[in-house]
Amino acid sequence: MRMIDLIAKKRDHEVLTTEEINFIINEYTADRIPDYQVSALLMAIYLNGMTDAETSALAKAMLDSGEVLNLDLIPGIKVDKHSTGGVGDKISIPLAPLVASAGVKNPMISGRGLGHTGGTLDKLEAIPGYDVDETVDQFIKQVSEHGTAIISATKDVAPADRKIYALRDVTSTVESIPLIASSIMSKKLASGTNALVLDVKTGNGAFMKTEERARKLAETLVAIGRQNNVPCVAYLTDMNQPLGYAIGNANEIKESIAVLRGEGPEDVTELTLILGAEMLVLAGISKTTAQARAILEDHIKDGSALAAFKQLITDQGGDASIVDHPEKLPQADGQVDVIAQASGYITAIETNELGLASVKIGGGRAKKDDIVDPAVGIMMHKKLGDAVKAGEPLATLYVNTEAPEEVQAQVLNSFTIGETKPELPPLIHEVIR
Amino acid sequence: MRMIDLIAKKRDHEVLTTEEINFIINEYTADRIPDYQVSALLMAIYLNGMTDAETSALAKAMLDSGEVLNLDLIPGIKVDKHSTGGVGDKISIPLAPLVASAGVKNPMISGRGLGHTGGTLDKLEAIPGYDVDETVDQFIKQVSEHGTAIISATKDVAPADRKIYALRDVTSTVESIPLIASSIMSKKLASGTNALVLDVKTGNGAFMKTEERARKLAETLVAIGRQNNVPCVAYLTDMNQPLGYAIGNANEIKESIAVLRGEGPEDVTELTLILGAEMLVLAGISKTTAQARAILEDHIKDGSALAAFKQLITDQGGDASIVDHPEKLPQADGQVDVIAQASGYITAIETNELGLASVKIGGGRAKKDDIVDPAVGIMMHKKLGDAVKAGEPLATLYVNTEAPEEVQAQVLNSFTIGETKPELPPLIHEVIR
Repeated sequence: MRMIDLIAKKRDHEVLTTEEINFIINEYTADRIPDYQVSALLMAIYLNGMTDAETSALAKAMLDSGEVLNLDLIPGIKVDKHSTGGVGDKISIPLAPLVASAGVKNPMISGRGLGHTGGTLDKLEAIPGYDVDETVDQFIKQVSEHGTAIISATKDVAPADRKIYALRDVTSTVESIPLIASSIMSKKLASGTNALVLDVKTGNGAFMKTEERARKLAETLVAIGRQNNVPCVAYLTDMNQPLGYAIGNANEIKESIAVLRGEGPEDVTELTLILGAEMLVLAGISKTTAQARAILEDHIKDGSALAAFKQLITDQGGDASIVDHPEKLPQADGQVDVIAQASGYITAIETNELGLASVKIGGGRAKKDDIVDPAVGIMMHKKLGDAVKAGEPLATLYVNTEAPEEVQAQVLNSFTIGETKPELPPLIHEVIR
Repeated sequence: MRMIDLIAKKRDHEVLTTEEINFIINEYTADRIPDYQVSALLMAIYLNGMTDAETSALAKAMLDSGEVLNLDLIPGIKVDKHSTGGVGDKISIPLAPLVASAGVKNPMISGRGLGHTGGTLDKLEAIPGYDVDETVDQFIKQVSEHGTAIISATKDVAPADRKIYALRDVTSTVESIPLIASSIMSKKLASGTNALVLDVKTGNGAFMKTEERARKLAETLVAIGRQNNVPCVAYLTDMNQPLGYAIGNANEIKESIAVLRGEGPEDVTELTLILGAEMLVLAGISKTTAQARAILEDHIKDGSALAAFKQLITDQGGDASIVDHPEKLPQADGQVDVIAQASGYITAIETNELGLASVKIGGGRAKKDDIVDPAVGIMMHKKLGDAVKAGEPLATLYVNTEAPEEVQAQVLNSFTIGETKPELPPLIHEVIR
């Protein structure tokens, strides 16, 4: 088998076989195919696409390039959730303890933030002492005993994906649905989960710029799961405004605690319940999502979800007293309000810009090795459809340095104020099974 | 300017500016852009194409990456010819002295054979002593005094083209019209010619597999010339059978001598006259191709074309006595006839296969560093439309080793014998100005 022939096949819109895809991934991982050949192939994939079968084979080959966790020692059906990322998307944090409290075994391997989106691991690290690194044995023990663990991937997971991702990043081949989908699923399947709920974001704060592309990504992810015998359900959810009010790591932990207390923002609470209910069904705990939702609502009311969060924090070395005393979380020195210049209704929010503004004050990463300040971020006061009067604060910046005027302007300009109350986007756009 | 943004532009079907193309070529030639970024761009160009303006800018940038000959010291309009390559295409060899004898200044920088096609330099080197390497001063002097010189390009010509060609070769991005056209023209324009006649081959022995693609290549070449103020005329000529009867280096020199004596095969003679007449018009020597053709026919009749060939050989250190004594050219030890197995008419010839058969017996190169045996090759006895009887020879292999049965079969199978005389393809398919 020769790489130039395989490049030519994809170039000519032909379909690569599983054997051919395995050859490419194995040889590239072993440094026996040069970057310049793989980048030509990546561009051909970007422009000519891949069938679901090819994409599944690619995910499987990348997954098999490294360590695949064997979670057989954990009893029952393991169910995980993955989000394609957005602004203020802290769902994993209330979700994991909530479903764990209802008996789901949830082995969650999460990532860090980059660009306008945050990452679950960065948020958890705002909790003093919380350690995202665990051995496989610790991970299995914790999920077995207490239902959930949220850790980072080891370097041994899907090394082919890491190598290919780095090459995509410098060859303008990131935004390809087969490449995105196979990258996500190679890592998720390597975690050893038996089923998966996918939260695919759509809207101006999502990576997928159109709903059509978000749907295509969701369908591709579900197809890869099916071909690899991991049932997946994908929710297309709204990212035309941040989820909840909090953007930034400590702030998002506080909002997550509020959700688990039954006092969270409506959208965050609702999405947590919807995704959680689906996880209970996939785990075989409930027959219907309605039954599952009732269970989860009970677990919020009776405090067991909150207790599970304390357990999760304690299990991973963190200070669980922050749950009852959120003021112990890192606090920013300064607060700067961004003030509405006109009255009316919030008709649009540039979600992407809010995420980037948070990065600029230290709440996220522009580059991979940037250091994140857990205390800083943005609190929204107004969301889509809210009435606003000139002079009212639209948002507050939490800062540890002076808030650059440029960032204040960026946040201000992220809000569009119109005369009539707009129609609100649905929280759930579509469900793909 | 960032390379990833330029890759993304081409990926997204946008048009690169001249400034952007210059950046890419300059930085890549200076090793400041890695191969893996250029190969992604090449695949995007392959799949999304380039406008004529982009292709012209690319040719110009590659040309400017190296030495550009200044032929101003040669008086008059310099006119060259370039062929995209075929089997038995020895046209340059009779053409150069023929037009030189009529007063054209023809600075010809030629190439070597690779794959199924031969190369003018290999053919000339079948002449004992002929040296294809000259200094620029020698080249200018020879063209000034005697009208023509046929030499190889120096390493300093269009280094960007050489670097990009090597990368295309290993990334399945060779067969792209903008990349082929800019590569050809970067080298041709670097030779300092003022005008150019292009012979673009079409048919089963040509690089362009369809007439449509050959036409597109011809149009692109002419457009690049126009944008760079070098008038070009492109002839789309037939390559559904070898040109003439001789394939192989010494054999093709003999056939070239025959053309200059007025005793050559009809197709080779005709194409030499047609392309030569166009060169005389471009050089401003004749007003019409009809006038020009009459001049060239006279120069064949009166022996001045043949004398110019002797001069060319002498100028480059070769033994011009081979013109009157072709038996002094390298002779192969053995001859093996390939015999027709049926009677009828030759209805098709697999020209590409005949070229490859000649390579297998040593007459060409499968790889760049293969050594060519000037004596070996194939003489055709039958061409398209010829009547043939079972038992008659179709072709003769000239060999210095035993002729492998596989090659004999390949030659035999290259001829299709049918019952009815076929319609013959035209020698000239189209002229593009």
